Amino acid sequence: MHTSLDCLPCFIRQAIDVARLVSKNPQEHEQILRHVLATTSEMDLSITPVEIGQYIHQYVRTITGISDPYTDIKKKFNDLALSLYPELKQTIEQSDHPIETAVRLAIAGNIIDYGTQSKVDDSLLHEAIDHALKEPLLGDISLFVEHINQANVILYLLDNAGEIVFDRLLIEQLPSEKITAVVKSGPIINDSTIHDAAYIKLTDIIPVIENGDTAPGTLLHRCSKHFIEQFERADLVIAKGQGNYESLNDVTKNIFFILKAKCSVIAEYLDCQQGNLILKHN
Amino acid sequence: MHTSLDCLPCFIRQAIDVARLVSKNPQEHEQILRHVLATTSEMDLSITPVEIGQYIHQYVRTITGISDPYTDIKKKFNDLALSLYPELKQTIEQSDHPIETAVRLAIAGNIIDYGTQSKVDDSLLHEAIDHALKEPLLGDISLFVEHINQANVILYLLDNAGEIVFDRLLIEQLPSEKITAVVKSGPIINDSTIHDAAYIKLTDIIPVIENGDTAPGTLLHRCSKHFIEQFERADLVIAKGQGNYESLNDVTKNIFFILKAKCSVIAEYLDCQQGNLILKHN
Repeated sequence: MHTSLDCLPCFIRQAIDVARLVSKNPQEHEQILRHVLATTSEMDLSITPVEIGQYIHQYVRTITGISDPYTDIKKKFNDLALSLYPELKQTIEQSDHPIETAVRLAIAGNIIDYGTQSKVDDSLLHEAIDHALKEPLLGDISLFVEHINQANVILYLLDNAGEIVFDRLLIEQLPSEKITAVVKSGPIINDSTIHDAAYIKLTDIIPVIENGDTAPGTLLHRCSKHFIEQFERADLVIAKGQGNYESLNDVTKNIFFILKAKCSVIAEYLDCQQGNLILKHN
Repeated sequence: MHTSLDCLPCFIRQAIDVARLVSKNPQEHEQILRHVLATTSEMDLSITPVEIGQYIHQYVRTITGISDPYTDIKKKFNDLALSLYPELKQTIEQSDHPIETAVRLAIAGNIIDYGTQSKVDDSLLHEAIDHALKEPLLGDISLFVEHINQANVILYLLDNAGEIVFDRLLIEQLPSEKITAVVKSGPIINDSTIHDAAYIKLTDIIPVIENGDTAPGTLLHRCSKHFIEQFERADLVIAKGQGNYESLNDVTKNIFFILKAKCSVIAEYLDCQQGNLILKHN
């Protein structure tokens, strides 16, 4: 999808957030913000929001020399999600429709996103879990199950740290022998890398590969040859989160997007309300 | 007060809002936005948010040739507020503390603000009224009444159209013979002008003067000599809304600020929560 003008205030806000995360110096914050304002004033808006996000975060990492501003945040949410894992697992196993419940919880985990919002805390996550178990799921869960059963090779594009524990819970309800999970090849916002996949022991149950890029989504023209081969070989892709939707919604492929529609631009694209739980077949 | 970095995303959003209000041409929206991004990237941030807001809205009016983008919105909210007037008047007169209730309703009316938010609708206004009548008022209403009684010359700095009806309800509870109300000298966002004061018949009950400027607040260095004389002569100023707080909070004067703390920057300045009802003595 193209970048909407409405994405711009959000990028400016993201630049401020990450500036404050990497530096305590207000002058440096201002310098970063001025650069981002000037750059976005000339940016090609026909590219995806994911590419603009990648540019901004790369710029901040380069000028500050801090390669992973979100290290602590990622660890915090991995730990928090792991502490919830036993209870959530029980919720899934005791439910009438474990796969649907696991999809709902995977969407709840999608709230752990430092791209679309400045701050996430425990209570926001707990609210998201309650919300995801109660509110309507916009999508056809039977169709999803049907495609899962028919597929031979499934690629699961992961999203954020912390959220990855919720994805693990969903993967455990699926025929995991068919599934390969995918992470980014380096730090970008609070997206999962191979370290997060290892930390929450997803690597113990399925193969996890890197996509060759560090965009907060999946930009096929930037991914590695190895990843593209896996992508082409897969007969089903599960793409998690807004970034993957923003970068793959125009791609012709058998994809199920699983996400919470967290901003007004995405909600308009999906013809839904902000906050809705989405299971969308491409 | 100075402009915070956190004000920048809000300015960008305001630029998009007003661009869409004045034009249906997406290319023109993009052109406006790119100009505002480039300009703010070089702007002096030691000036008040009010000055930056004034610049952006003046720029859009100049390049589009549309002198008052908010004409319809201002009329809509004047009419809506006038339709609520009899019921609100009764609420005030039947309450145990009519002045406090009138202050609370004046704060409710402060929600009609197209600077801090993209859209206001009837239900938001009704919610704001319910909220203002129930939630704590942060401020000393007895001190306010004491100052009102002691003052000989009171200047009431008005804020937005629609909201001005709520201000009229408060003014009717005060010794109105002491009060002169003040509007902007021309259109700026949905701020009240003399036309709004006349339309809702505030001009029938007290003198209403213009301040000589079109900032969405009160920038003393830009106001007319006549207004400054009135300001200096007044022994009490009632300053309504965020814009007046942003532009006058550092001025040494006997001022009561009446507002709803609508954004996080103001809430931090006032050491309160976003949404709180504020009656603050300078």
